[in-house]
Amino acid sequence: MENKKEFIIRTDLALEKSEIVKEQKGTLGDGVETIEEEKGTCKITTVNILNEKGSEMLGRPCGTYITIESEFLNKNDASCHEEAAKCTAQCLNRIEKFKNAKSILVVGLGNWNITPDALGPKVVERMLVTRHIMDTVPDELKNGGVRPLAALSPGVMGITGIETFEIIKGVTEKTKPDVIVAVDALAARSVKRINQTIQISDTGVAPGAGVGNKRAELSEKTLGVPVIAIGVPTVVDAATMAGDTIDRIIHEMKVSSEKGSEFYAMLDDLSHEEKYSLIYEILQPYEENMFVTPKDVDFVIDNLSEIIANAVNIASHPGFTIEDIKKYCI
Amino acid sequence: MENKKEFIIRTDLALEKSEIVKEQKGTLGDGVETIEEEKGTCKITTVNILNEKGSEMLGRPCGTYITIESEFLNKNDASCHEEAAKCTAQCLNRIEKFKNAKSILVVGLGNWNITPDALGPKVVERMLVTRHIMDTVPDELKNGGVRPLAALSPGVMGITGIETFEIIKGVTEKTKPDVIVAVDALAARSVKRINQTIQISDTGVAPGAGVGNKRAELSEKTLGVPVIAIGVPTVVDAATMAGDTIDRIIHEMKVSSEKGSEFYAMLDDLSHEEKYSLIYEILQPYEENMFVTPKDVDFVIDNLSEIIANAVNIASHPGFTIEDIKKYCI
Amino acid sequence: MENKKEFIIRTDLALEKSEIVKEQKGTLGDGVETIEEEKGTCKITTVNILNEKGSEMLGRPCGTYITIESEFLNKNDASCHEEAAKCTAQCLNRIEKFKNAKSILVVGLGNWNITPDALGPKVVERMLVTRHIMDTVPDELKNGGVRPLAALSPGVMGITGIETFEIIKGVTEKTKPDVIVAVDALAARSVKRINQTIQISDTGVAPGAGVGNKRAELSEKTLGVPVIAIGVPTVVDAATMAGDTIDRIIHEMKVSSEKGSEFYAMLDDLSHEEKYSLIYEILQPYEENMFVTPKDVDFVIDNLSEIIANAVNIASHPGFTIEDIKKYCI
Amino acid sequence: MENKKEFIIRTDLALEKSEIVKEQKGTLGDGVETIEEEKGTCKITTVNILNEKGSEMLGRPCGTYITIESEFLNKNDASCHEEAAKCTAQCLNRIEKFKNAKSILVVGLGNWNITPDALGPKVVERMLVTRHIMDTVPDELKNGGVRPLAALSPGVMGITGIETFEIIKGVTEKTKPDVIVAVDALAARSVKRINQTIQISDTGVAPGAGVGNKRAELSEKTLGVPVIAIGVPTVVDAATMAGDTIDRIIHEMKVSSEKGSEFYAMLDDLSHEEKYSLIYEILQPYEENMFVTPKDVDFVIDNLSEIIANAVNIASHPGFTIEDIKKYCI
Repeated sequence: MENKKEFIIRTDLALEKSEIVKEQKGTLGDGVETIEEEKGTCKITTVNILNEKGSEMLGRPCGTYITIESEFLNKNDASCHEEAAKCTAQCLNRIEKFKNAKSILVVGLGNWNITPDALGPKVVERMLVTRHIMDTVPDELKNGGVRPLAALSPGVMGITGIETFEIIKGVTEKTKPDVIVAVDALAARSVKRINQTIQISDTGVAPGAGVGNKRAELSEKTLGVPVIAIGVPTVVDAATMAGDTIDRIIHEMKVSSEKGSEFYAMLDDLSHEEKYSLIYEILQPYEENMFVTPKDVDFVIDNLSEIIANAVNIASHPGFTIEDIKKYCI
Repeated sequence: MENKKEFIIRTDLALEKSEIVKEQKGTLGDGVETIEEEKGTCKITTVNILNEKGSEMLGRPCGTYITIESEFLNKNDASCHEEAAKCTAQCLNRIEKFKNAKSILVVGLGNWNITPDALGPKVVERMLVTRHIMDTVPDELKNGGVRPLAALSPGVMGITGIETFEIIKGVTEKTKPDVIVAVDALAARSVKRINQTIQISDTGVAPGAGVGNKRAELSEKTLGVPVIAIGVPTVVDAATMAGDTIDRIIHEMKVSSEKGSEFYAMLDDLSHEEKYSLIYEILQPYEENMFVTPKDVDFVIDNLSEIIANAVNIASHPGFTIEDIKKYCI
Repeated sequence: MENKKEFIIRTDLALEKSEIVKEQKGTLGDGVETIEEEKGTCKITTVNILNEKGSEMLGRPCGTYITIESEFLNKNDASCHEEAAKCTAQCLNRIEKFKNAKSILVVGLGNWNITPDALGPKVVERMLVTRHIMDTVPDELKNGGVRPLAALSPGVMGITGIETFEIIKGVTEKTKPDVIVAVDALAARSVKRINQTIQISDTGVAPGAGVGNKRAELSEKTLGVPVIAIGVPTVVDAATMAGDTIDRIIHEMKVSSEKGSEFYAMLDDLSHEEKYSLIYEILQPYEENMFVTPKDVDFVIDNLSEIIANAVNIASHPGFTIEDIKKYCI
Repeated sequence: MENKKEFIIRTDLALEKSEIVKEQKGTLGDGVETIEEEKGTCKITTVNILNEKGSEMLGRPCGTYITIESEFLNKNDASCHEEAAKCTAQCLNRIEKFKNAKSILVVGLGNWNITPDALGPKVVERMLVTRHIMDTVPDELKNGGVRPLAALSPGVMGITGIETFEIIKGVTEKTKPDVIVAVDALAARSVKRINQTIQISDTGVAPGAGVGNKRAELSEKTLGVPVIAIGVPTVVDAATMAGDTIDRIIHEMKVSSEKGSEFYAMLDDLSHEEKYSLIYEILQPYEENMFVTPKDVDFVIDNLSEIIANAVNIASHPGFTIEDIKKYCI
């Protein structure tokens, strides 16, 4: 079944990819390490890709991928949101390149005209921007309490005519930040993970990741500055969901009836080409632009952008609490 | 397979419902009449439900359901949009109760905070509202060239705390229109029909139709005034899509391999309860609030609302052309 | 100078009107009573119009007009906003007809497309609407802890073609609230009061008040239900400001130089017609639609709508705190 | 009176500045040349600052300042808007550096959160951006019919923490356009000119111009690429308006009565310090952030941004008409 799975499953979450590989191969091998923790209502899973072997297995560069999951992220619960923001800030501070940076550039990726892709720009709107007012910051806050922070949403190529990378590169050269934090909306495989998961990674943004899908790599290699990526899966693409449904029906039939296993065997009998063409026929109507999102996506993206902005704000400015941020930011 | 289909397929389009029935029973019987036409890039299908038998078969009240389909509705093509608007206006004028009305109330149903549900409110924003300025209308336009038109978006119960029906009933009693035009976003069965179809019906709005789903009947019976419904399917709900995928895989296997027909026979062998529980297991993750929409839904809803507003404007005010409307409306 | 003043000064604040009368006549007579208090950063002034004489003097119906002033209302200070919301809620509860009402309809007046006029609709968006879910409210909250509350923004006549009054009357008849709270943006005389003042009155909304200016009276007399008006001056009209400038120059010259008093005497010598025509010439360019607003009006209106919504929410639902509201509302 | 005037009058329009100088000195001298034309409903005035003397007199660099005025710009009249767009495109093409440029970067200055300052960003939203799709442009359009055009709204320093200049400089270095077109909202002296005037100049954007007021110079000197500025006055600041009112009252009194001239003489008698302090007292309440705008500013800015975007689109892409643009752009 691997080929089919490769054909249809799209996910930007290292955690989901590791689950898929585990399901397929039974093990992640010795190139990948996963650690699970619980903090209040949040579950934190760290996937460390340790070497080339792990990198190949998960299709991602070596580095750390921290996933914060909470079923309250997309519910209307202010105190759980605050907990999630604090938890995300702590995870962010585990990344030394962020923690030790003297100045920060926050970049909001994605298209602000498309609601499930607008997460990054909406986070940027809520950042406590300080780079231009550092000379007015009180002395007691200057030794790291408030760090110079700039924030920019470069838009997408269809809006500007300019590769996102070029804009960020140009601005990085002019403003010389120590670290870039790139916030982006992601695609998940599983409907259950939509808007309930935050992923932090220290490897930057892979080419073609995100909801919008056409983007050059943003990383220390390409930009000359470490890039921390923060993402939330806000959609499942319709083709992935259709493929997932096919998997589920096969799985259910295997489990729920003996006849299912006959069917499974039968599907196994089909040649690779037959399978490919079957899947292709079924998925054809779900063009690349069809996505599964919750009905209240506008509202949920607002909440998520506040959570992530709070997290980045308090992690960037240790002299400030979330209460302080609310006093000074919109 | 009927039970399964009943369980999972949701559509507000009479045309889709008639297709499903035809597929299942082979015929629509003598209670339903369908007529097809082509006008430029638009395909018009009229489904007339003639009697109680037809009504039961399609699960809708007796009356006329006109569907205008064009693959350009959700593309960025101003001249096809104008053609579709004119075609929709002509279809609207086939309904005598609209054509002969001396005054019109346009009602935009749906939740303006949820993009795929905001079609109705967005149409209302673009209406050429005249009821309050009829005494300033030039004499030559008064004999039907411009009709008194009012327009209102009542919001949804979650926003107002008031049943939509109560607001419309209250306003209808105060303003006494001859006809109500209710514009609403709909749910379709097929992803292909999303944002490519306009349905006009003279039977009002059924309870529970639309994207938002919790609404009392709006009809001549309940409001005392004829209600013309205009709707566009803007979503497919995720459970319907998952169910559709299951149908497709079964169908494809039947067609593409002999083994498929074995599988089909096998599924047929399962008892009703077994099938129900299989489907239930598979659909569980796609909660009622998960929808399939195109990524550019914000942009498409804008275009569609302009098309429908233009149609209702020129049909309501025969003295005006689309060019005139552009001059006077936003 | 009275005539000139009458000609140019426009204010919806009873407090400003009382100041103008005092300035002109030296006294408010025995028809008007004013009481001043301080609560933290808020100054509360209650103007009671006691009888016909007071009513004529201030050009307003008999009743209570409570003004809450705070220089922090239009600043970005979350804790002062909370203080102002609580203070406003207390003032609202001084009005018996509100305090004792079993059910509440909040009406957001004004045009949501015009930022300084959008206060009412924005407050409605933030209301904790409960009328439709009273059967799910826990028993311990039912004895007044949560009251059935509905909320509606009727729009303005230019948008709907329907007199605001007709919509509210229709909805009132259907939903039968015990009291109506009408929230509106107002015009002030003084630039200093813009967005720093909240006025509560128990006399309803006068015809032609508000930023939008064309509205029928909303009161117990016309609607059959007590109407509490809450307003914030968000603009000064440009003609009023120009007139105010003229007053100021005259006043300054009187005070700052002997020559000023000659000038004042000279102005006094001009006949009424001469004065009228002088003023008319000067004010002509400032058409009725020109207003003075702060540059950051979008941001300030957002803050003010949150303050007022919080106030109405906690006053309407005594079982809830502002913290609770934040948890359940957007 | 010059000192007072210097103190209070703020205008970004070269035309207004030239009128003020003419009023004060009676002549513009030989450093400034003005040419007037009429095209349909548009009046075009070209102010050429020829030398250092002219530059000093008008407080602006040498170069060409073209002003297009039409009383229909802020009215709802689609055909006059089209005329104005065409007229503006023609004026833009008179500037050789624009006409001969092989590639164009459009920059939308100003703060998109503040309606009267959002003109530039709104124009950028409507640009027919082509830089990223030049390889898909049909051959017949390639020889200048469609030019590579990129568009960017850099935001303001309060939003990004980055000087606008730095962002534009960075992006310019990466994308290497032949010419930059910078669109900005301006401040006028006269209420009459608000939203009725378009200014094009080939000298770039002066430091501190625009509604937002804190900006480094954008010009060929600072960016290494010619900068064409297009601006529309969308506000008069309240202090300028108050000052203008003072001027008007003095002027009217001079004209309308002999006593006025006494008053004028009297004002003249006041020492410079006395005048300064008088004006200061009067203007104090109108803080820097108070502006005069029309009530329907949201709607007018939408219209103006469409007019200017159409103008820049057809001037940049001579192979396209406004009709074509409507077909391909939002």
